[in-house]
Amino acid sequence: MDVRVILVEPKLAENIGAVARVMKNFCFRELYLVKPPALTEKMFWVASHAEDVLRASTVVSSLDDAITGSKLVVGTTAKTGISANRHLRKPLFSPRELVAKVADRGDGEVLALLFGPEDRGLLNEELVHCDLVVSIPTSAVYPVLNLSHAVAIVLYELYELQEQQAFEPGSSMQQPALAAVADKERLFQHVSRFLEEIEYRAHKRTRTMLMLRRLLGRAVLTAREVRTLRGILRSAERKMREQERERRKQR
Amino acid sequence: MDVRVILVEPKLAENIGAVARVMKNFCFRELYLVKPPALTEKMFWVASHAEDVLRASTVVSSLDDAITGSKLVVGTTAKTGISANRHLRKPLFSPRELVAKVADRGDGEVLALLFGPEDRGLLNEELVHCDLVVSIPTSAVYPVLNLSHAVAIVLYELYELQEQQAFEPGSSMQQPALAAVADKERLFQHVSRFLEEIEYRAHKRTRTMLMLRRLLGRAVLTAREVRTLRGILRSAERKMREQERERRKQR
Repeated sequence: MDVRVILVEPKLAENIGAVARVMKNFCFRELYLVKPPALTEKMFWVASHAEDVLRASTVVSSLDDAITGSKLVVGTTAKTGISANRHLRKPLFSPRELVAKVADRGDGEVLALLFGPEDRGLLNEELVHCDLVVSIPTSAVYPVLNLSHAVAIVLYELYELQEQQAFEPGSSMQQPALAAVADKERLFQHVSRFLEEIEYRAHKRTRTMLMLRRLLGRAVLTAREVRTLRGILRSAERKMREQERERRKQR
Repeated sequence: MDVRVILVEPKLAENIGAVARVMKNFCFRELYLVKPPALTEKMFWVASHAEDVLRASTVVSSLDDAITGSKLVVGTTAKTGISANRHLRKPLFSPRELVAKVADRGDGEVLALLFGPEDRGLLNEELVHCDLVVSIPTSAVYPVLNLSHAVAIVLYELYELQEQQAFEPGSSMQQPALAAVADKERLFQHVSRFLEEIEYRAHKRTRTMLMLRRLLGRAVLTAREVRTLRGILRSAERKMREQERERRKQR
């Protein structure tokens, strides 16, 4: 889906700038501002390299105008489960559950994502009209996130979806090849022979080999790493053979 | 694990205050500041109801002082896959992968979570010494998140873990203790001396040491594993010394 971020009556310039920035960080561009303060230099300074998002934002005078043309209206709230349940009578979804819910939607459909003002959040009568209400799980002691933090977290979750739909070629890193099972097995055989050669105490050998298998298994070795580890073993073996040859020569 | 948030040379009062706030939102309390600016009213204003977190923060003058006593050092970077791959040669984990990696660790062990300065982030030489490096997936066009946004997103992911431990205290007590940072460092020093002793090719030593740091960092070593690995090195050294002694005796 195409995500439209809607800030309802935001108060602080810093937050508006910070929202523009994090939108660009996560490849979202459509920003609507309902009755915002006038654009200031401070906003642009905070928006940093996202001044284009800020400049292209749409200012409207009502929530209805902001959600026009959208297919799904998603509100956000810091209300805890109980009060939300009593007053709102709606289930609250986590940002991740939201992503799961909209994952199979095509693009071209607008998801309107609403964030309320810093001091009061979205009102119940605003939340009631949302298709879904999202709440970020937080501390019961201090549940109210900074506005731009809330936006950052929801967009962070939605980014995955965005990526999936509008794959940016070349942006993902070429992962190094993992080691083949057989090569890892040869490494373990090699280590085992090495332990014998260095007369590592026999009664500890089995346990140590198990530990190494567990440890290196956890690390998920690449092919290159397996080669390097075997190279270290070979160097040590060569050194020991040289010493052994020297010893025999002198006999 | 107990999460210690470490801001390395943060510059902006707003960000420090915003980090304190989001820490309290997600129930984290341990904040270390490496060479921060002096506390200002602005910081407390932005921290809002988290002024206690800010007031209890620990100011230190070096990164080493900040990670003292921690069991796992996790760096963060905005570097993209390709440049990280070229310069750092470490895999980058997403915040969610980090949570998966530490999910079974007991509490009482400190996870040091490092965030670099706003202008340059953590340097490669700082990242090299981290057990794990986390990168938040972002747009290739504008990957650099605001500092407090990056903290917010990583803590949002770690909060789940925090919650889980709070509700099931002692559930992960059976886990073996992780290795201390200093012990891991001694292991790396030991490996480095060993490579010299076995005359491992000098031009490859630095690269190989980096690879081993990366690999063993990823594996998240326990104290016992570090002891066993050093035991293997000592066995090999003993064997080589014996051969050397034999050789000299026969001269």
